[in-house]
Amino acid sequence: MSTQSQQPQPQEPLTFPSHHASLIQPYLPPPPSVSSSSSSSSTTTATPFPHVTLTYAHSLDAALSLAPGVRTTLSGPQSKAMTHFLRAHHDGILVGAGTAVADDPGLNSRLVSPRPVVLDPRARWDVHEGSRVVVLAREGKGLGPWVLVGSRTVVDEGRRRVLEAVGGRYIPLEAKGERGRFKWEDVLRVLKGEGLESVMVEGGGEVINSLLAPPENRFVGSVIATIAPTWLGQGGVVVSPPRTAGEDGKPAPVRLTDVTWCPLGEDVVLCGRISR
Amino acid sequence: MSTQSQQPQPQEPLTFPSHHASLIQPYLPPPPSVSSSSSSSSTTTATPFPHVTLTYAHSLDAALSLAPGVRTTLSGPQSKAMTHFLRAHHDGILVGAGTAVADDPGLNSRLVSPRPVVLDPRARWDVHEGSRVVVLAREGKGLGPWVLVGSRTVVDEGRRRVLEAVGGRYIPLEAKGERGRFKWEDVLRVLKGEGLESVMVEGGGEVINSLLAPPENRFVGSVIATIAPTWLGQGGVVVSPPRTAGEDGKPAPVRLTDVTWCPLGEDVVLCGRISR
Repeated sequence: MSTQSQQPQPQEPLTFPSHHASLIQPYLPPPPSVSSSSSSSSTTTATPFPHVTLTYAHSLDAALSLAPGVRTTLSGPQSKAMTHFLRAHHDGILVGAGTAVADDPGLNSRLVSPRPVVLDPRARWDVHEGSRVVVLAREGKGLGPWVLVGSRTVVDEGRRRVLEAVGGRYIPLEAKGERGRFKWEDVLRVLKGEGLESVMVEGGGEVINSLLAPPENRFVGSVIATIAPTWLGQGGVVVSPPRTAGEDGKPAPVRLTDVTWCPLGEDVVLCGRISR
Repeated sequence: MSTQSQQPQPQEPLTFPSHHASLIQPYLPPPPSVSSSSSSSSTTTATPFPHVTLTYAHSLDAALSLAPGVRTTLSGPQSKAMTHFLRAHHDGILVGAGTAVADDPGLNSRLVSPRPVVLDPRARWDVHEGSRVVVLAREGKGLGPWVLVGSRTVVDEGRRRVLEAVGGRYIPLEAKGERGRFKWEDVLRVLKGEGLESVMVEGGGEVINSLLAPPENRFVGSVIATIAPTWLGQGGVVVSPPRTAGEDGKPAPVRLTDVTWCPLGEDVVLCGRISR
């Protein structure tokens, strides 16, 4: 983490070691489809949902950040290369509005950029000319973001122009979930309908936790999580699904199966699938 | 975790693979001293404290158990073999009264048993003839426990007789810490004075968290933690130290350095030392 921690040059490729790539490969979706024309002749069962990969980095005490809205660097430089590798293997990359507001993320890849998707039922994200994802799209280093907003949410016309100028747009969707949220089923159906065969869900805590709890976790194809050997201490934004009960009424843990642990620098990468 | 999950036969040795043992070896204290007679001629600096190894197993959401007092099995069978291996490399094994009450732990090793130590400032642990640690000591499969009680706490004479009959005893110590707790400095000084050169701290959450936070974490020689690929969900007993501020007044994460990740069945074992 020491000598490599300086900002890489813009043209410098961030390479992800092939040894690590081969360990992670089984947890990736099929390669992004360049054209969907061949799919009709394939024998695979068509599902109305994309492959979902949950991916994030957290501390030993399961914290994504010190507090809501506080960007916290946890994982080492190798993790950055992995993120670009993972993003290049997905059609879309999804974050919640809270992450878009707090982190101003780029959501691109130096390899092949996925479509940025922001879940923003109440149009909280003040997307503007200087937003990183917009700048990157304007420079041809990423795609224009799709912002899913509540179907009855009024959208600022200036923001809409910013999005559309870089090939992005607002996509209205009825927020049928609790507390004005979208339901995952609706979100994923829309994204598949828009042509995304695979989506990487990166954060934040609310988005990840809502997707980890049953029955929503049936949509999760794989989990690729980086754990850093650090405790952020009590009060952080943690990855921990709401407690649910099993058939016997007792608390039912959410288990991963088909697990691979891959040490990466000082961190470890955990790959697995939700056990059913 | 499938075929090996049945209870092992009493005589069946639980072997810990030598490959794993060699990875963990650097984080162990020097071998337990059989005799202290040679130490006076050695050149090592005498410290008033034993080597402390923090060791425990938790879920991905950092939970030791579903709730206080609820024994929760998290790690796989290989982890059990590791526990016996670790215990055999320490002079003492320490838990808080809450763990003694909730888990009725054996605190022994099939290899070489360490001295069980229970921190119990208010004498909450109702140790009796049937307590596992007492039964094991009576059968010659473990040592009689030392129970550290507050110097002004009145101790039940029946309990005292139970302890002393198996070679254990109460050790009175002034509880100078917050909320009637002991201070780690006092506890470790007493244990060293009683001849323990190394102590493995196993739980529970309150004990671990109090030892992870600075300045107390200066006493921690190494951390050996097992992480199971399971989420217990919100509301568990979690390992997360209280938030402390650094010199700049900002929250200061507690970092591990000299880190080794060792996959063990479905779990991973994290070894490291507290970064200073």
